[in-house]
Amino acid sequence: MSNPKTPDAVGPVLLLELSDSPGSTLTTRVSSAIRQAVVGGRLTEGARLPSSRSLAADLGVSRGVVVAAYALLADEGFLVSRSGSGTRVSEGFPVPSAPTSAIWSADVPGLVAIDLRPGPPDLGAFPRKAWMRALRNTLSAIPDTELGYVDPWGTDALRGALASYLARVRGAEVTAERVVVVNGVTQGLTLLVRVLRAAGHRHLAVESPSNAVQRGVLSSHGLSMIDVRVDDDGLDVEALARTPCRAVLVTPAHQFPTGTQLSAERRAALVRWAEAVDGVILEDDYDSEFRYERLPMACLQSLAPTRVALIGSVSKTLAPGLRLGWVVTPPALVDALRATKRDDDFGGSVIQQHALADFMTSGEYDGHLRTLRRRYRERRDALRAAAAKYLPEWPIMGVAAGLHLLIEPPTAVNEAVLVREAAARGLLIQGTASMYGTLPPRPGLVLSYARGPVSMLSEGTRRLAEAARPAPVGAPPLVGRGRRQRHASATAEDYF
Amino acid sequence: MSNPKTPDAVGPVLLLELSDSPGSTLTTRVSSAIRQAVVGGRLTEGARLPSSRSLAADLGVSRGVVVAAYALLADEGFLVSRSGSGTRVSEGFPVPSAPTSAIWSADVPGLVAIDLRPGPPDLGAFPRKAWMRALRNTLSAIPDTELGYVDPWGTDALRGALASYLARVRGAEVTAERVVVVNGVTQGLTLLVRVLRAAGHRHLAVESPSNAVQRGVLSSHGLSMIDVRVDDDGLDVEALARTPCRAVLVTPAHQFPTGTQLSAERRAALVRWAEAVDGVILEDDYDSEFRYERLPMACLQSLAPTRVALIGSVSKTLAPGLRLGWVVTPPALVDALRATKRDDDFGGSVIQQHALADFMTSGEYDGHLRTLRRRYRERRDALRAAAAKYLPEWPIMGVAAGLHLLIEPPTAVNEAVLVREAAARGLLIQGTASMYGTLPPRPGLVLSYARGPVSMLSEGTRRLAEAARPAPVGAPPLVGRGRRQRHASATAEDYF
Repeated sequence: MSNPKTPDAVGPVLLLELSDSPGSTLTTRVSSAIRQAVVGGRLTEGARLPSSRSLAADLGVSRGVVVAAYALLADEGFLVSRSGSGTRVSEGFPVPSAPTSAIWSADVPGLVAIDLRPGPPDLGAFPRKAWMRALRNTLSAIPDTELGYVDPWGTDALRGALASYLARVRGAEVTAERVVVVNGVTQGLTLLVRVLRAAGHRHLAVESPSNAVQRGVLSSHGLSMIDVRVDDDGLDVEALARTPCRAVLVTPAHQFPTGTQLSAERRAALVRWAEAVDGVILEDDYDSEFRYERLPMACLQSLAPTRVALIGSVSKTLAPGLRLGWVVTPPALVDALRATKRDDDFGGSVIQQHALADFMTSGEYDGHLRTLRRRYRERRDALRAAAAKYLPEWPIMGVAAGLHLLIEPPTAVNEAVLVREAAARGLLIQGTASMYGTLPPRPGLVLSYARGPVSMLSEGTRRLAEAARPAPVGAPPLVGRGRRQRHASATAEDYF
Repeated sequence: MSNPKTPDAVGPVLLLELSDSPGSTLTTRVSSAIRQAVVGGRLTEGARLPSSRSLAADLGVSRGVVVAAYALLADEGFLVSRSGSGTRVSEGFPVPSAPTSAIWSADVPGLVAIDLRPGPPDLGAFPRKAWMRALRNTLSAIPDTELGYVDPWGTDALRGALASYLARVRGAEVTAERVVVVNGVTQGLTLLVRVLRAAGHRHLAVESPSNAVQRGVLSSHGLSMIDVRVDDDGLDVEALARTPCRAVLVTPAHQFPTGTQLSAERRAALVRWAEAVDGVILEDDYDSEFRYERLPMACLQSLAPTRVALIGSVSKTLAPGLRLGWVVTPPALVDALRATKRDDDFGGSVIQQHALADFMTSGEYDGHLRTLRRRYRERRDALRAAAAKYLPEWPIMGVAAGLHLLIEPPTAVNEAVLVREAAARGLLIQGTASMYGTLPPRPGLVLSYARGPVSMLSEGTRRLAEAARPAPVGAPPLVGRGRRQRHASATAEDYF
């Protein structure tokens, strides 16, 4: 349900797509769509919204629905209404254009700032010496021709090393010919989306909840995003089958943000769906290397190598700054993906590719992963223990793997207020309200334990519990009006 | 002048755009358009062409025109006609999908193969030790946060180093805020083309002759290419002003392939044109570091920093395999270019960016350029001397700068035959026939002296002179029918 006006003419005209999710009220659907437009960057800080009367007319709903949606969003801190100047997006709302900068100030006098938002891994763990060795091996060994124009889809050495690693560790069905090396998962996904668009796809199903900025980025490459809900077994494949999509982006190993693993039944159903619609599954394997008590499960790609594109990177295992990732491409898409990469940038750093190949084939990478797994497991244990101590009633999800967990405040808690109250105590956390796209959100907080240390995880949880306690009646507000607030969600985790 | 059929349905339907260049015959215009379709990859090896009758009807020309054009192209080796199966693109014609592979076999028994095609620089000159030092400095000095998600348009350190270098060496008007770091010139150009497309541009003027593959790549990003001729003063700005373009891609320092420098009058005229049409000039500064007797001229960007995007890379000065380039962006396009880079791939290798910044600020880069300039100058002198000795009647152009020169065979010489005869003698050269787009080509050979050594340049020129001598009547053809011929043009130089 979209009106024909273009999204360029923001100001008083606003293109909104309402979900037709059964069971949600019109007000919820309108507020979700606006929230999504803000988070996705279509509506920027300070942007003016249409009058409730005109938006109601555009959407074919009653004016009261829009008024209620605006009120809800104002309550959450997304919008502000001023008499005379109408309704606007809050100043200080984080737009995706600055995902790496500090979007919150957590400088509270006398307190050490603690950042539990998902984002980079422990950058102090980057194996500088071993990486230096790999670079030295590369520069002393590769022939001159490898410094020239090599295959833009990746050096033979790295594609071979990745094929062997992904077969061994992820159970992938892969040969070096099917690997395309990219500048990280962002480029893997944007190239794939453009290949799908050229092949006639118009829609991409995405998980709800999922990465909000990712949704915005991918839709800028020509596919429209359709939200499909995630439950305790992962993506709802029956709901997917009711959409017009023939392509879906999933995080089966460790759903972001819920931490759910896609169940075996759902895996099978998803593959059957792909066969039935002649579809493509994009498997974002973003942090599968880190699993703790859970048994390893092979990647989804191993079940249907002709249907699944497996996308991964070293951003969580080594460093995002390497900007090194890969796509294991279904045979039918290999040529198109290679050509798209070639005609976009003619490839990425060859020396760095050789260094990673050396790092992988020498066994250094395996050793590094073992070290990281131990370290992250300790931190996860610490965060879980702290949550059990300070927030005993709040359910925790997704502890078995990855670098973050999801904690659910009671539904009575206003997530946006909680995030703000935490910031006032020097604690940065990320809420999930913005991650549901057009579907109705439920309160949730993503807490990363990647950057530790253990003492900080515990202190952060303590502050969260404090932020969640209702302020005594009559107490002064914790956050003054003059303070520039940022009603968070985009972080660097949202790029990938 | 395009018909409404889509280029996807190649086979018997063919979308051709005829130039309306005054003075060229219809046959020339039709043959140029077909040549362009082959070189640009729209028509691949073995692809069947429409019948002369049906193409004539589509184009609204007489059948005789198409028959003559087909005959001309068959003579040049682009097409083959077989009774019964119609006219097809020659098997063995180099399609741009394999630009890095050897597209010719120059293995002639008893002869060392000599490759004078433009392409990579002297890769043996890559300063491995000094680069290793720069990497070591980086890994021992940068803070952990720099290994995370940094600004996707480039590290502060590198943007600062580039701004200072480009101001000092190229006279550019630049601050670090206006620099966007990219994966080489290919990405710089493709991002800019997409930014221009989003800003409402539909056409991009390109020089004729110019890089044929580049033209194909850029048109795949949404702008249609319009050819504007180059004469002894560089781009014909009056001809440009007659096109509907508001954007133009030029190589002012050293036109590719003619080696012409854009004259001072033309520079001024080009800037006036840009002001008049509210236009954008893309300045591809691909090998400006190498100039010999010529006085240095500041980049065009210095004349009109709000109109010119200055694009460069280290592909010719260090190694293409680094995949490191930059765009100095007009202020009005900075935000859009940054956002496009961010939403495409979230940036390139941070460690490598720091290494280049270190290499530049330490003075190593300047020293390296001085060494290279001496070396390339010697090689240029050797090639020029050999040409004067073996081909005294053939004009030479573009000797004052760069890594290649252009030599003009007499108009009576069939360029395609000459290229083939040279290959039969173990000499690989690149003709310019494919570089004129829709405008009528003139014979020319691009000879690179970048890879030396001096003795090889001399021997290569000797073989070229031999290839140009007409075979005695009745002598057996130098090239047997069974040999797989590749009627050249795409090389790695064509990616950028």
